[in-house]
Amino acid sequence: MTVVRWKALERRVIQHSPWRRIEDVTFELPDGQVRTFSLKKEGRVVCVLPISRDNTVILARQYRPGPDRILDELPGGGVEPGETPEDAAARELLEETGYVAGRLLPLGRPLECAYSTIERHAFLAVACERRGAQSLDETEFIDVIEKPIDAFVAQLREGACTDPEVGWMGLYELGHLNVPA
Amino acid sequence: MTVVRWKALERRVIQHSPWRRIEDVTFELPDGQVRTFSLKKEGRVVCVLPISRDNTVILARQYRPGPDRILDELPGGGVEPGETPEDAAARELLEETGYVAGRLLPLGRPLECAYSTIERHAFLAVACERRGAQSLDETEFIDVIEKPIDAFVAQLREGACTDPEVGWMGLYELGHLNVPA
Repeated sequence: MTVVRWKALERRVIQHSPWRRIEDVTFELPDGQVRTFSLKKEGRVVCVLPISRDNTVILARQYRPGPDRILDELPGGGVEPGETPEDAAARELLEETGYVAGRLLPLGRPLECAYSTIERHAFLAVACERRGAQSLDETEFIDVIEKPIDAFVAQLREGACTDPEVGWMGLYELGHLNVPA
Repeated sequence: MTVVRWKALERRVIQHSPWRRIEDVTFELPDGQVRTFSLKKEGRVVCVLPISRDNTVILARQYRPGPDRILDELPGGGVEPGETPEDAAARELLEETGYVAGRLLPLGRPLECAYSTIERHAFLAVACERRGAQSLDETEFIDVIEKPIDAFVAQLREGACTDPEVGWMGLYELGHLNVPA
Protein backbone atom coordinates (compact mmCIF):
# COMPACT_ATOMS: atom_id res chain seq x y z
CA MET A 1 0.00 0.00 0.00
CA THR A 2 1.16 3.51 -0.67
CA VAL A 3 0.13 6.14 1.82
CA VAL A 4 -1.35 9.20 0.10
CA ARG A 5 -2.65 12.60 1.15
CA TRP A 6 -6.38 12.76 1.67
CA LYS A 7 -8.42 14.97 -0.61
CA ALA A 8 -10.28 17.75 1.23
CA LEU A 9 -13.75 18.22 -0.26
CA GLU A 10 -15.05 20.93 2.05
CA ARG A 11 -13.80 23.10 4.92
CA ARG A 12 -15.77 25.08 7.47
CA VAL A 13 -14.27 27.09 10.34
CA ILE A 14 -16.33 27.48 13.51
CA GLN A 15 -15.25 30.33 15.82
CA HIS A 16 -16.18 28.97 19.22
CA SER A 17 -14.62 31.77 21.27
CA PRO A 18 -12.00 34.46 20.61
CA TRP A 19 -9.21 31.93 21.22
CA ARG A 20 -10.78 28.66 20.13
CA ARG A 21 -11.64 27.62 16.59
CA ILE A 22 -12.59 24.30 15.07
CA GLU A 23 -12.26 23.48 11.38
CA ASP A 24 -14.58 20.76 10.12
CA VAL A 25 -12.92 19.27 7.06
CA THR A 26 -14.66 16.72 4.89
CA PHE A 27 -12.16 14.38 3.25
CA GLU A 28 -12.37 11.73 0.60
CA LEU A 29 -10.29 8.91 2.07
CA PRO A 30 -8.07 6.66 -0.11
CA ASP A 31 -10.76 3.96 -0.28
CA GLY A 32 -13.47 6.40 -1.36
CA GLN A 33 -15.14 6.90 2.04
CA VAL A 34 -16.23 10.47 2.77
CA ARG A 35 -15.59 11.50 6.40
CA THR A 36 -15.60 14.77 8.30
CA PHE A 37 -12.86 15.44 10.85
CA SER A 38 -13.12 18.24 13.42
CA LEU A 39 -9.64 19.73 13.51
CA LYS A 40 -8.31 22.16 16.07
CA LYS A 41 -7.73 25.31 14.02
CA GLU A 42 -4.66 26.78 15.67
CA GLY A 43 -2.09 29.23 14.35
CA ARG A 44 1.60 30.10 14.69
CA VAL A 45 3.25 29.85 18.07
CA VAL A 46 6.79 29.90 19.39
CA CYS A 47 8.51 28.17 22.29
CA VAL A 48 11.99 28.84 23.66
CA LEU A 49 14.49 26.88 25.75
CA PRO A 50 16.43 29.69 27.48
CA ILE A 51 19.81 28.92 29.03
CA SER A 52 21.45 31.53 31.26
CA ARG A 53 25.14 32.46 31.31
CA ASP A 54 25.31 30.32 34.48
CA ASN A 55 24.04 27.28 32.53
CA THR A 56 20.65 27.17 34.22
CA VAL A 57 17.30 26.84 32.47
CA ILE A 58 15.03 29.87 32.81
CA LEU A 59 11.44 28.78 33.30
CA ALA A 60 8.07 30.46 33.76
CA ARG A 61 6.24 28.95 36.75
CA GLN A 62 2.51 29.37 36.22
CA TYR A 63 -0.87 27.74 36.61
CA ARG A 64 -2.04 25.94 33.46
CA PRO A 65 -5.80 25.46 33.18
CA GLY A 66 -5.79 22.44 30.80
CA PRO A 67 -3.68 20.12 32.97
CA ASP A 68 -4.98 21.99 36.07
CA ARG A 69 -1.43 22.17 37.47
CA ILE A 70 1.23 24.69 38.36
CA LEU A 71 4.09 23.99 35.95
CA ASP A 72 7.58 25.26 35.23
CA GLU A 73 7.00 26.11 31.59
CA LEU A 74 9.24 27.10 28.72
CA PRO A 75 8.51 30.68 27.64
CA GLY A 76 6.41 31.02 24.52
CA GLY A 77 3.20 32.21 22.97
CA GLY A 78 1.52 33.29 19.79
CA VAL A 79 3.23 34.99 16.85
CA GLU A 80 1.61 38.39 16.28
CA PRO A 81 0.60 39.63 12.82
CA GLY A 82 3.64 40.96 10.94
CA GLU A 83 6.06 39.44 13.43
CA THR A 84 8.69 36.82 12.56
CA PRO A 85 8.90 33.71 14.74
CA GLU A 86 12.37 34.87 15.90
CA ASP A 87 10.97 38.24 16.98
CA ALA A 88 8.08 36.52 18.75
CA ALA A 89 10.47 34.22 20.61
CA ALA A 90 12.63 37.13 21.78
CA ARG A 91 9.54 39.13 22.78
CA GLU A 92 7.92 36.27 24.72
CA LEU A 93 11.19 35.50 26.51
CA LEU A 94 11.54 39.14 27.60
CA GLU A 95 7.88 39.62 28.53
CA GLU A 96 7.50 36.42 30.53
CA THR A 97 10.91 36.32 32.22
CA GLY A 98 12.68 39.69 31.85
CA TYR A 99 15.62 37.91 30.15
CA VAL A 100 17.22 38.57 26.78
CA ALA A 101 19.17 36.02 24.76
CA GLY A 102 22.83 36.39 23.86
CA ARG A 103 21.99 34.28 20.81
CA LEU A 104 18.69 32.92 19.59
CA LEU A 105 19.00 29.76 17.48
CA PRO A 106 16.16 28.14 15.53
CA LEU A 107 15.45 24.52 16.35
CA GLY A 108 12.87 22.58 14.33
CA ARG A 109 9.12 22.95 14.06
CA PRO A 110 7.77 20.25 16.35
CA LEU A 111 4.26 19.14 15.50
CA GLU A 112 1.77 18.95 18.34
CA CYS A 113 -1.18 16.81 17.39
CA ALA A 114 -2.44 14.88 14.36
CA TYR A 115 -5.67 16.89 14.51
CA SER A 116 -4.27 20.39 15.04
CA THR A 117 -3.23 22.87 12.37
CA ILE A 118 -0.81 24.53 14.81
CA GLU A 119 2.55 25.73 13.43
CA ARG A 120 5.05 25.77 16.29
CA HIS A 121 8.55 27.19 15.97
CA ALA A 122 11.12 26.08 18.54
CA PHE A 123 14.16 28.09 19.59
CA LEU A 124 17.21 27.72 21.77
CA ALA A 125 18.27 30.92 23.55
CA VAL A 126 21.80 30.83 24.94
CA ALA A 127 23.82 33.23 27.11
CA CYS A 128 20.61 34.74 28.47
CA GLU A 129 20.84 37.65 30.88
CA ARG A 130 18.30 39.38 33.04
CA ARG A 131 17.41 42.68 31.38
CA GLY A 132 14.56 44.01 33.44
CA ALA A 133 11.08 43.39 34.73
CA GLN A 134 8.49 41.07 33.25
CA SER A 135 5.74 42.60 31.13
CA LEU A 136 2.84 40.22 31.63
CA ASP A 137 -0.51 40.00 29.90
CA GLU A 138 -3.45 40.59 32.21
CA THR A 139 -4.17 36.87 32.59
CA GLU A 140 -0.51 35.88 33.18
CA PHE A 141 0.82 35.32 36.71
CA ILE A 142 4.36 34.01 36.37
CA ASP A 143 7.27 33.41 38.74
CA VAL A 144 10.65 33.20 37.01
CA ILE A 145 12.64 30.10 37.99
CA GLU A 146 16.26 29.23 37.29
CA LYS A 147 16.74 25.46 37.31
CA PRO A 148 19.92 23.38 36.97
CA ILE A 149 20.02 21.35 33.77
CA ASP A 150 19.96 17.99 35.56
CA ALA A 151 16.77 18.99 37.40
CA PHE A 152 15.28 20.11 34.08
CA VAL A 153 16.11 16.73 32.52
CA ALA A 154 14.32 15.06 35.44
CA GLN A 155 11.31 17.27 34.70
CA LEU A 156 11.41 16.33 31.00
CA ARG A 157 11.55 12.62 31.88
CA GLU A 158 8.24 13.06 33.69
CA GLY A 159 6.85 15.17 30.84
CA ALA A 160 5.88 17.86 33.36
CA CYS A 161 5.63 20.86 31.07
CA THR A 162 3.45 21.48 28.02
CA ASP A 163 6.27 21.78 25.43
CA PRO A 164 8.70 19.07 26.58
CA GLU A 165 9.94 18.30 23.06
CA VAL A 166 11.41 21.80 22.83
CA GLY A 167 13.45 21.10 25.96
CA TRP A 168 14.74 17.83 24.53
CA MET A 169 15.52 19.44 21.15
CA GLY A 170 17.46 22.26 22.74
CA LEU A 171 19.45 20.07 25.13
CA TYR A 172 20.35 17.80 22.22
CA GLU A 173 21.63 20.75 20.16
CA LEU A 174 23.52 22.08 23.19
CA GLY A 175 25.39 18.78 23.35
CA HIS A 176 23.88 17.80 26.69
CA LEU A 177 22.36 14.76 25.04
CA ASN A 178 24.66 12.80 22.79
CA VAL A 179 23.90 9.88 20.56
CA PRO A 180 26.84 7.49 20.91
CA ALA A 181 28.55 6.51 17.69
CA MET B 1 4.64 36.63 44.06
CA THR B 2 3.45 33.13 44.74
CA VAL B 3 1.85 31.29 41.85
CA VAL B 4 -1.44 29.68 42.87
CA ARG B 5 -4.04 27.46 41.24
CA TRP B 6 -6.97 29.32 39.75
CA LYS B 7 -10.42 28.77 41.24
CA ALA B 8 -12.91 27.31 38.75
CA LEU B 9 -16.32 28.95 39.24
CA GLU B 10 -18.21 27.21 36.44
CA ARG B 11 -17.64 24.47 33.84
CA ARG B 12 -19.61 23.67 30.72
CA VAL B 13 -18.75 20.97 28.19
CA ILE B 14 -19.77 21.48 24.56
CA GLN B 15 -19.84 18.35 22.40
CA HIS B 16 -18.93 19.72 19.00
CA SER B 17 -18.68 16.36 17.22
CA PRO B 18 -18.24 12.74 18.34
CA TRP B 19 -14.49 13.29 18.68
CA ARG B 20 -14.25 16.96 19.58
CA ARG B 21 -15.31 18.58 22.84
CA ILE B 22 -14.66 21.99 24.31
CA GLU B 23 -14.93 22.81 28.01
CA ASP B 24 -15.62 26.43 28.83
CA VAL B 25 -14.30 27.01 32.33
CA THR B 26 -14.87 30.28 34.16
CA PHE B 27 -12.03 31.00 36.56
CA GLU B 28 -11.46 33.54 39.28
CA LEU B 29 -7.88 34.63 38.63
CA PRO B 30 -5.47 35.47 41.49
CA ASP B 31 -6.17 39.22 41.17
CA GLY B 32 -9.94 38.72 41.30
CA GLN B 33 -10.64 38.95 37.56
CA VAL B 34 -13.27 36.51 36.29
CA ARG B 35 -12.37 35.01 32.89
CA THR B 36 -13.64 32.14 30.78
CA PHE B 37 -11.15 29.86 29.01
CA SER B 38 -12.20 27.47 26.24
CA LEU B 39 -10.24 24.33 26.96
CA LYS B 40 -9.83 21.36 24.65
CA LYS B 41 -11.62 18.58 26.52
CA GLU B 42 -9.53 15.55 25.63
CA GLY B 43 -9.17 12.22 27.40
CA ARG B 44 -6.63 9.44 27.97
CA VAL B 45 -4.28 8.48 25.16
CA VAL B 46 -1.12 6.40 24.83
CA CYS B 47 1.95 6.68 22.64
CA VAL B 48 4.72 4.12 22.19
CA LEU B 49 8.32 4.23 21.00
CA PRO B 50 8.79 0.69 19.61
CA ILE B 51 12.31 -0.65 19.08
CA SER B 52 12.79 -3.88 17.17
CA ARG B 53 15.23 -6.67 18.02
CA ASP B 54 17.37 -5.25 15.20
CA ASN B 55 17.50 -1.86 16.98
CA THR B 56 15.32 -0.06 14.47
CA VAL B 57 12.37 2.19 15.29
CA ILE B 58 8.99 0.88 14.12
CA LEU B 59 6.85 3.70 12.77
CA ALA B 60 3.38 4.09 11.32
CA ARG B 61 3.54 6.10 8.08
CA GLN B 62 0.20 7.84 7.56
CA TYR B 63 -1.51 11.00 6.43
CA ARG B 64 -2.29 13.40 9.28
CA PRO B 65 -5.09 15.87 8.61
CA GLY B 66 -4.07 18.57 11.12
CA PRO B 67 -0.54 19.19 9.80
CA ASP B 68 -1.79 18.08 6.31
CA ARG B 69 1.30 15.89 5.89
CA ILE B 70 2.31 12.28 5.55
CA LEU B 71 4.32 11.49 8.68
CA ASP B 72 6.23 8.59 10.19
CA GLU B 73 4.33 8.47 13.46
CA LEU B 74 4.81 6.66 16.74
CA PRO B 75 2.00 4.15 17.29
CA GLY B 76 -0.69 5.26 19.71
CA GLY B 77 -4.29 6.15 20.25
CA GLY B 78 -7.06 6.41 22.79
CA VAL B 79 -7.41 4.30 25.93
CA GLU B 80 -10.69 2.40 25.77
CA PRO B 81 -13.09 2.17 28.73
CA GLY B 82 -11.89 -0.44 31.23
CA GLU B 83 -8.47 -0.69 29.60
CA THR B 84 -5.19 0.14 31.34
CA PRO B 85 -2.75 2.45 29.55
CA GLU B 86 -0.32 -0.51 29.26
CA ASP B 87 -2.98 -2.64 27.59
CA ALA B 88 -3.88 0.23 25.25
CA ALA B 89 -0.22 0.70 24.28
CA ALA B 90 0.23 -3.00 23.49
CA ARG B 91 -3.05 -3.06 21.56
CA GLU B 92 -2.29 0.05 19.50
CA LEU B 93 1.22 -1.23 18.71
CA LEU B 94 -0.20 -4.54 17.46
CA GLU B 95 -3.14 -3.04 15.57
CA GLU B 96 -1.16 -0.31 13.79
CA THR B 97 2.05 -2.23 13.08
CA GLY B 98 1.52 -5.96 13.63
CA TYR B 99 4.38 -5.96 16.18
CA VAL B 100 4.40 -7.11 19.79
CA ALA B 101 6.80 -5.88 22.45
CA GLY B 102 9.29 -8.11 24.25
CA ARG B 103 8.97 -5.64 27.13
CA LEU B 104 6.75 -2.61 27.54
CA LEU B 105 8.16 0.02 29.90
CA PRO B 106 6.26 3.07 31.15
CA LEU B 107 7.88 6.42 30.46
CA GLY B 108 6.35 9.62 31.88
CA ARG B 109 3.09 11.37 31.14
CA PRO B 110 4.09 14.19 28.79
CA LEU B 111 1.68 17.08 28.76
CA GLU B 112 0.56 18.37 25.39
CA CYS B 113 -0.87 21.84 25.71
CA ALA B 114 -1.63 24.38 28.43
CA TYR B 115 -5.26 24.46 27.28
CA SER B 116 -5.91 20.72 26.84
CA THR B 117 -7.14 18.30 29.50
CA ILE B 118 -5.48 15.39 27.67
CA GLU B 119 -3.81 12.67 29.78
CA ARG B 120 -1.09 11.05 27.69
CA HIS B 121 0.84 7.97 28.81
CA ALA B 122 4.17 7.30 27.09
CA PHE B 123 5.78 3.88 26.73
CA LEU B 124 8.98 2.35 25.48
CA ALA B 125 8.55 -1.03 23.79
CA VAL B 126 11.77 -3.00 23.39
CA ALA B 127 12.65 -6.27 21.65
CA CYS B 128 9.65 -5.88 19.37
CA GLU B 129 8.87 -8.63 16.88
CA ARG B 130 6.48 -8.88 13.98
CA ARG B 131 3.56 -11.01 15.09
CA GLY B 132 1.09 -10.73 12.26
CA ALA B 133 -0.98 -8.41 10.13
CA GLN B 134 -2.19 -4.96 11.06
CA SER B 135 -5.77 -4.57 12.25
CA LEU B 136 -6.65 -1.04 11.20
CA ASP B 137 -9.65 1.12 11.99
CA GLU B 138 -11.71 2.03 8.94
CA THR B 139 -10.15 5.51 8.68
CA GLU B 140 -6.55 4.28 9.16
CA PHE B 141 -4.25 3.76 6.17
CA ILE B 142 -0.81 2.94 7.53
CA ASP B 143 2.45 1.66 6.08
CA VAL B 144 4.81 0.14 8.65
CA ILE B 145 8.33 1.57 8.47
CA GLU B 146 11.50 0.39 10.20
CA LYS B 147 13.95 3.25 10.58
CA PRO B 148 17.52 3.28 11.94
CA ILE B 149 17.84 5.18 15.21
CA ASP B 150 20.11 7.89 13.73
CA ALA B 151 17.52 8.63 11.04
CA PHE B 152 14.84 8.77 13.74
CA VAL B 153 16.94 11.27 15.73
CA ALA B 154 17.18 13.41 12.58
CA GLN B 155 13.38 13.26 12.31
CA LEU B 156 13.00 14.29 15.98
CA ARG B 157 15.38 17.24 15.47
CA GLU B 158 12.97 18.54 12.82
CA GLY B 159 9.97 17.74 15.02
CA ALA B 160 8.39 15.83 12.13
CA CYS B 161 5.95 13.65 14.04
CA THR B 162 3.08 14.56 16.33
CA ASP B 163 4.47 12.99 19.54
CA PRO B 164 8.18 13.84 19.29
CA GLU B 165 8.67 14.08 23.07
CA VAL B 166 7.87 10.38 23.39
CA GLY B 167 10.70 9.62 20.97
CA TRP B 168 13.13 11.75 22.97
CA MET B 169 11.99 10.25 26.29
CA GLY B 170 12.41 6.70 25.04
CA LEU B 171 15.82 7.26 23.45
CA TYR B 172 17.00 8.89 26.68
CA GLU B 173 15.85 5.89 28.75
CA LEU B 174 17.44 3.52 26.23
CA GLY B 175 20.77 5.24 26.83
CA HIS B 176 20.99 6.61 23.30
CA LEU B 177 21.00 10.11 24.74
CA ASN B 178 23.29 10.69 27.69
CA VAL B 179 23.70 13.78 29.79
CA PRO B 180 27.43 14.13 30.38
CA ALA B 181 28.48 14.26 34.01
